[in-house]
Amino acid sequence: MEKSKSITTVKVDLGPKSYPIHIGANILPGLGDYVKRLGVGSRIMVVTNPTVGALYGRQVSDSLEAAGFETIVAEVPDGEKYKSLESAALLYDTAFTGGLDRSNAVLALGGGVIGDLAGFIAATYMRGVPFIQVPTTLLAQVDSSVGGKVAVNHPRGKNIIGAFYQPRMVFSDINTLYTLEDRQFRAGMAEVIKYGIIRDRDFFTFLEREAPAVRQLHIGTVIRVVETSCRIKAEIVAEDETEQGIRAILNLGHTFGHAYEALTGYSEFVHGEAVAIGMVSAARAAVKTGLLPEPDLARIERLIATYGLPCGFGNLDIAEIIESMYHDKKAVGGKVRYVLPETIGRAAIVPEISHEILKNVLQGQQNQV
Amino acid sequence: MEKSKSITTVKVDLGPKSYPIHIGANILPGLGDYVKRLGVGSRIMVVTNPTVGALYGRQVSDSLEAAGFETIVAEVPDGEKYKSLESAALLYDTAFTGGLDRSNAVLALGGGVIGDLAGFIAATYMRGVPFIQVPTTLLAQVDSSVGGKVAVNHPRGKNIIGAFYQPRMVFSDINTLYTLEDRQFRAGMAEVIKYGIIRDRDFFTFLEREAPAVRQLHIGTVIRVVETSCRIKAEIVAEDETEQGIRAILNLGHTFGHAYEALTGYSEFVHGEAVAIGMVSAARAAVKTGLLPEPDLARIERLIATYGLPCGFGNLDIAEIIESMYHDKKAVGGKVRYVLPETIGRAAIVPEISHEILKNVLQGQQNQV
Repeated sequence: MEKSKSITTVKVDLGPKSYPIHIGANILPGLGDYVKRLGVGSRIMVVTNPTVGALYGRQVSDSLEAAGFETIVAEVPDGEKYKSLESAALLYDTAFTGGLDRSNAVLALGGGVIGDLAGFIAATYMRGVPFIQVPTTLLAQVDSSVGGKVAVNHPRGKNIIGAFYQPRMVFSDINTLYTLEDRQFRAGMAEVIKYGIIRDRDFFTFLEREAPAVRQLHIGTVIRVVETSCRIKAEIVAEDETEQGIRAILNLGHTFGHAYEALTGYSEFVHGEAVAIGMVSAARAAVKTGLLPEPDLARIERLIATYGLPCGFGNLDIAEIIESMYHDKKAVGGKVRYVLPETIGRAAIVPEISHEILKNVLQGQQNQV
Repeated sequence: MEKSKSITTVKVDLGPKSYPIHIGANILPGLGDYVKRLGVGSRIMVVTNPTVGALYGRQVSDSLEAAGFETIVAEVPDGEKYKSLESAALLYDTAFTGGLDRSNAVLALGGGVIGDLAGFIAATYMRGVPFIQVPTTLLAQVDSSVGGKVAVNHPRGKNIIGAFYQPRMVFSDINTLYTLEDRQFRAGMAEVIKYGIIRDRDFFTFLEREAPAVRQLHIGTVIRVVETSCRIKAEIVAEDETEQGIRAILNLGHTFGHAYEALTGYSEFVHGEAVAIGMVSAARAAVKTGLLPEPDLARIERLIATYGLPCGFGNLDIAEIIESMYHDKKAVGGKVRYVLPETIGRAAIVPEISHEILKNVLQGQQNQV
């Protein structure tokens, strides 16, 4: 592992709520100094899980304490099912008994589950306290830590309870990706590929060309992947913070993907895998509706496969997939809006797709992997 | 009861989050038309309690349905203890099973408990849906429905879990005050008197002069009371939405008041009564620290008594009161900031008061009512 302390910064431009995303390799030891510049109170609640806590908890606490902070560490068990109101209730308790006041920050050290949960606590504890994201998975570094979507799950649906609440800083040490399971890394790549499809054809081409370097975690290449992904997401979020319009293009593959996750009880596919399959569905639907040229679909499918991601959903029932999409929280007024690629590098929001086309699209992915 | 459909509107000026407060007598039958103008989706979840629901639920549903809305009515049992995460979890469930989507509004029909709880649901269900306040108590009409503070309680403290989330409209029918218990009406007057003390000497004088008309619920006088209170609160909220500075003056009497509520297990004093006693504490402290002239203290105590509100806290322990204030969520960095009147019509935020002065202040109110 190469050592480097140079830091690349992407700014999320949201007026008074703007914040920096710092990206670099082996930068965690400098975290405390960066937090100090935020002007938050002297106590910090670090929310993490046992896996990440064991790997990086000490390093983070040491860095914060060296910069003069007191830390309260709250561990939440690993797993999506702990992204719940029950976990939130326990964290409020830890915060309150730990004497966390309105000036003190909540810091998320972990992946998307930890970031979403800790962010929900930060958004709602005493009506909002400063929030810091230290994402340790690729998915969190390129997607969930940026843009201020925080949430917990409800027994009836994912992310049903949440808020738009921007962090004061995102601090991504890509060295943490070296301890990430390969499957989780690949899942994160689904969101990375998404950015290429919806907004940046050159980046898509870069991902095609550099696939070996990315998969071997070549440090400069991975920094470029994280930085470009954050830049694209930051631009879109800056245009539409609370998803009234354009931000919805970030949901490419997600309407289909949520159905694949829900119908397999969130056990067969990790989120990024479901999104990958969903992006293929969206691209296939875009071809069928005459929006996307066939060769672009082929490139999308090929790139998804190159990164070891699935293109088909196995033996799920097609009628159930369609039904499930109509229960997604993105359905408004009983209509499902779809995000479809128009070309590699640009996406459109389409108000509805006929059931006939949907069936046809899904048949092509059934019993495939 | 005089009938009048003329509506007075106070605007809360918060840029794109601005909203109107409509005030009038017997205006509930026109609610649906006003909601229609907001451009929200066709389904509305009405959150209320059995008492208010029995009195006004039908009138509200009829008006909404006549304007073309479908309503889902969710009743939460009466009482502060139901302003909890558990109630919130049940309401998320009702919303989800009722098919509430992101365009659909949550409407609070009730007092402060219902407004705070329903507002918290609106702020967090699907990361925020439109919110409408229909306050039916004086306290809610002059205070809690305006300004976007929403919250639920945590077993360890009131309003520990919440957000700043502005409603799209507040709709106050002062006829609902005719069915309010007199004790609750008087409690609401504590917040009204507060506005006079912190911001408007003429209003304070008006409240002195018009006390008989107010207490007899003279319709024009009560409308003026609600309107002026809302105007003052709206001005302060517009200057400082998230309580970074000046908004804190709205907490006059609240730091002391929370201690009186907490130490009596929230059973002896209703909130407004505790605030009334707390305002006397603050005014006494302001005299002791040389901030407020003695005659102003006398006028404050007299007006509070005129409206049937207490000036003393009985036999609570003084050391425990001081200790409790240091645990209040408004304590930042272990310091308690106090809001003290400088004159009738203006208040200041004071970083700290010595324990000696506090003891002296509190001794004067001990064993008094």
